[in-house]
Amino acid sequence: MSIPLGSANVAERRNMPPALAVSTVIFGIRPIDGGRAQLWLPLVRRVRQPHAGQWALPGGPVGPRESLGTAASRTLASTTGLRPSYLEQLYTFGDPDRSPSQRLVTIAYFALVTEAQVGATVEDENVAWFALDDPVLENLAFDHRQIIDYALWRLRNKVEYGQIAHRLLGERFTLAQLRAVYEAMLGKELDPANFRRQLKATQSIVATDEYLAGGQHRPPRLYRYAGSGHDPLEVDTNHE
Amino acid sequence: MSIPLGSANVAERRNMPPALAVSTVIFGIRPIDGGRAQLWLPLVRRVRQPHAGQWALPGGPVGPRESLGTAASRTLASTTGLRPSYLEQLYTFGDPDRSPSQRLVTIAYFALVTEAQVGATVEDENVAWFALDDPVLENLAFDHRQIIDYALWRLRNKVEYGQIAHRLLGERFTLAQLRAVYEAMLGKELDPANFRRQLKATQSIVATDEYLAGGQHRPPRLYRYAGSGHDPLEVDTNHE
Repeated sequence: MSIPLGSANVAERRNMPPALAVSTVIFGIRPIDGGRAQLWLPLVRRVRQPHAGQWALPGGPVGPRESLGTAASRTLASTTGLRPSYLEQLYTFGDPDRSPSQRLVTIAYFALVTEAQVGATVEDENVAWFALDDPVLENLAFDHRQIIDYALWRLRNKVEYGQIAHRLLGERFTLAQLRAVYEAMLGKELDPANFRRQLKATQSIVATDEYLAGGQHRPPRLYRYAGSGHDPLEVDTNHE
Repeated sequence: MSIPLGSANVAERRNMPPALAVSTVIFGIRPIDGGRAQLWLPLVRRVRQPHAGQWALPGGPVGPRESLGTAASRTLASTTGLRPSYLEQLYTFGDPDRSPSQRLVTIAYFALVTEAQVGATVEDENVAWFALDDPVLENLAFDHRQIIDYALWRLRNKVEYGQIAHRLLGERFTLAQLRAVYEAMLGKELDPANFRRQLKATQSIVATDEYLAGGQHRPPRLYRYAGSGHDPLEVDTNHE
């Protein structure tokens, strides 16, 4: 059943059943000078009203016969080409006035992708990665800026050290790489000795017998994620 | 705009825009023998199809002009009379087959109420509190059992010691009361000395200068929640 939007006025549209969409916030890191890193996220330019021409989170409507997690994976792949190895449901945004047309309830998802995946993305005039301090983020469609801010808050507060490491950096990483990710996330420099001590206390990462490849005199040791109980409702997109 | 459900067959209903509802899982404790406690939750008997006569989480449809959090507070108060001081959005459940009629997407909320609030509830044949091991929970409407299991998982994994204490016990509590709550939550006995040591290490509760009133020779000290950063999207129902 389709609703003839064109024939309804604003008041009528607002009393229609809400439309349901998914949007996904994906964070990845890009290295910058001095061994440091920055958090970036992909955005998609809207081609339809409302907010045509403005940048927005990748997403789209939920199909009548697909699960919410499948809708998030599908819309993400079709708009950005990204297929993160996991997606986590973040929060559902449903304020009555968050869309200027029909009421729109959006189920936001959250993902982290590795540096390699960020580098492999094909960008064009309608799909691109932006740093968190890019002015484009000040003028996003809908309440997408609020959704990004909430995802960033969750990233900073709720994810374990080891989980962040293996999702943003890959299976093996050095402590310096991990510290650079934390500095990017928190927006401040961290003392290397304190960082190392706190990290080891959490027991969320373990040392491997491997060292970073390269010509260094004393190559740094590689660590891996210790594993942990996952959220039972996390969408494992590898097994869908 | 209302949808004439009666005139649509099952296949037609499944392609309609999803209906949107809220459901709330509320945990409270009831004291049992030997200073122990049990987790209970309120359920409401359904008076309409689908699942008429079965017990379900309190909730109902989202009104066209109300926020999701307001819908959760309103449906909770109208079905159970409960007005918890805060509600947290838990997860949105939207599998295409979770309802036998029109597709139904439910935004689940989560709340904790104090022992005093549990005791003040008026129960009748259509609203009652149940212990987590009550056989009624084996045969709930929709996927409400799954929603309860997820809420329990979140309670066990994500909430700080101090937050649980002040939300389930009130502003002031003894360490023995808090341990009884944790034993009820985890379903096992805890060693009092280990519990006390671990709790103090988290710094989420602080000792007050007050002691439990009563005729005991050595009355136990009262503690309070140390306070902490809240989830910025938590619904503060006191200020809506």
